[in-house]
Amino acid sequence: MENKKITLSYGSGGKLMHQLIKNLFLKKFGNVISEKLDDSAVLPPIPNNFRIVFTTDSYVVKPIFFPGGDIGKLSICGTINDLSVMGAKPRYISVSAIIEEGLEIEKLEKIINSIAETSKRAGVQIVCGDTKVVEKGAADEIFLTTSGVGILDNKLNISGRNAKPGNIVILSGTIADHGIAILNARQELELKGKLLSDVAPLNNLVEKMLNAGKINTMRDPTRGGLATTLNEIAEQSDVGIEIIEERIPINKSTKTVCNLLGLDPIYIANEGKLLAIVEEKHAEKILSTIKKHPLGKNAEIIGKIISKPKAVFLKTRIGGTRILQMLESDQLPRIC
Amino acid sequence: MENKKITLSYGSGGKLMHQLIKNLFLKKFGNVISEKLDDSAVLPPIPNNFRIVFTTDSYVVKPIFFPGGDIGKLSICGTINDLSVMGAKPRYISVSAIIEEGLEIEKLEKIINSIAETSKRAGVQIVCGDTKVVEKGAADEIFLTTSGVGILDNKLNISGRNAKPGNIVILSGTIADHGIAILNARQELELKGKLLSDVAPLNNLVEKMLNAGKINTMRDPTRGGLATTLNEIAEQSDVGIEIIEERIPINKSTKTVCNLLGLDPIYIANEGKLLAIVEEKHAEKILSTIKKHPLGKNAEIIGKIISKPKAVFLKTRIGGTRILQMLESDQLPRIC
Repeated sequence: MENKKITLSYGSGGKLMHQLIKNLFLKKFGNVISEKLDDSAVLPPIPNNFRIVFTTDSYVVKPIFFPGGDIGKLSICGTINDLSVMGAKPRYISVSAIIEEGLEIEKLEKIINSIAETSKRAGVQIVCGDTKVVEKGAADEIFLTTSGVGILDNKLNISGRNAKPGNIVILSGTIADHGIAILNARQELELKGKLLSDVAPLNNLVEKMLNAGKINTMRDPTRGGLATTLNEIAEQSDVGIEIIEERIPINKSTKTVCNLLGLDPIYIANEGKLLAIVEEKHAEKILSTIKKHPLGKNAEIIGKIISKPKAVFLKTRIGGTRILQMLESDQLPRIC
Repeated sequence: MENKKITLSYGSGGKLMHQLIKNLFLKKFGNVISEKLDDSAVLPPIPNNFRIVFTTDSYVVKPIFFPGGDIGKLSICGTINDLSVMGAKPRYISVSAIIEEGLEIEKLEKIINSIAETSKRAGVQIVCGDTKVVEKGAADEIFLTTSGVGILDNKLNISGRNAKPGNIVILSGTIADHGIAILNARQELELKGKLLSDVAPLNNLVEKMLNAGKINTMRDPTRGGLATTLNEIAEQSDVGIEIIEERIPINKSTKTVCNLLGLDPIYIANEGKLLAIVEEKHAEKILSTIKKHPLGKNAEIIGKIISKPKAVFLKTRIGGTRILQMLESDQLPRIC
């Protein structure tokens, strides 16, 4: 690269942009599909008995580098996880960047490296992308939008609509780690203890779970946290959900920060956890499969589906019952 | 909507965001796929003998409303056109918005309406999306990222790599209208004459062209304009391209503004035009097909492919030959 910072010319469609694409993006993401440099990527044939699953998300997390990850890793994991919780195998990802003029090219390189590493490790290919540059002050360093294409076995039918009374609710690990790690990084709370984002790709874990038993619904509880995701499922499936507070796994240091700041961890974002709502007879087998996976060591059965009323109930430690509403306002902006 | 402006809470994952999705996005985009409200959209089966084509682009155009269109229409047309120039039929689109706190909800509604109308008219479905809100000053009103999935007949092979010596270069209409319309809107030049963006979905035109003869390469000359796109093709196909200046269609008012401001229209962005590089024996039939289409009335044969040297040559009006380089610097930022 000739420059140390991104200028508007990197987004103009001209020579500098082509240089950026060739020397950075293609070098890191390079594969037979992206290297064709056409306006769109032609994907290999879809296997028989599979459908296509399609998703998109934008990432505006602040700061762009945080303990446990960065905006690049977050964007790839987010898209992988949105496909995975449908039961799909993530295959192809597009990455589009909106960059603020003046961003250090070194930072961009770090992000691109992180995208390349994360996607390689998760077995997905970056097949197309775009770069726009806006003037200083018109964006905040870098925003990413990733879209993903996955393939879904025709035999599977996993949806927020499929939770049924009697089903068991499994959570794959501790809650609130991502949101609290971001908050700590942003506010320089300098709190002791390990406050790492849990950002991770869940596709490998999901593949193993699908072999272990019948799963009706899966979700990754990101923005709005566990409570909001449970509310979405109750709404979509027209059921009630009963959750037992003391069963919900939480890291000690995350809990300490939540207590200190008066935040309810059940509303704080996660980026490497999933909820699975499964047939009761398969629950133990699915749970033990999750627990054997590095990303599921702290998994627990946290509750069950009831027929009505359509709401989420939390059985508290002291024996009471609290109705968990959807997140009302904005606890933590730009968490993802 | 309860509020008149977008607040950070609209992006938090909580109640206001769900309200926005239900009352605005789903109402306007609603279809059986998007209404499932799952993390990803499961697409209908892909017909036999078709492959999947995948593309993405971000849009940061300023101003967000301009003569002839707005950021919503632009984002849908851009994605449709990127798929169409591969010979693919655009089918499914994702829309992800990054919104600056304080954006008037009325403006958002106008943009959403424009997205809904454009996609309906072009026969594509909006199947998934995302919304993030950043604090005032961290973005500029609204940025959109659209990704698209199209289906491509196995028999077709259209690529920037396929231009061959002897092939004919057809341009579907006048150049530089989009870039100049944006510039006029932004700088309030208040120039007389019709300065409208040419933003339009080209999928219907392309379908008709594919039935008229053999097309080797298609491209929509957006950022960097005609000259940059021709350079990309010369590079990818390892050929030379000879273009005749007086054959290049241009609107009188666009030309006047370019002359006044000292801008070279051959480097200015288009959003509803395409270049087709076709077998010589089919050129006249393809040209007449384009000319019959409302979006191709001003189409012309503007040049031909030569074997070498690998460069783009412009035969000027006064009989000289000029080498057209790729765009060097940033003529007009945030044009798309």
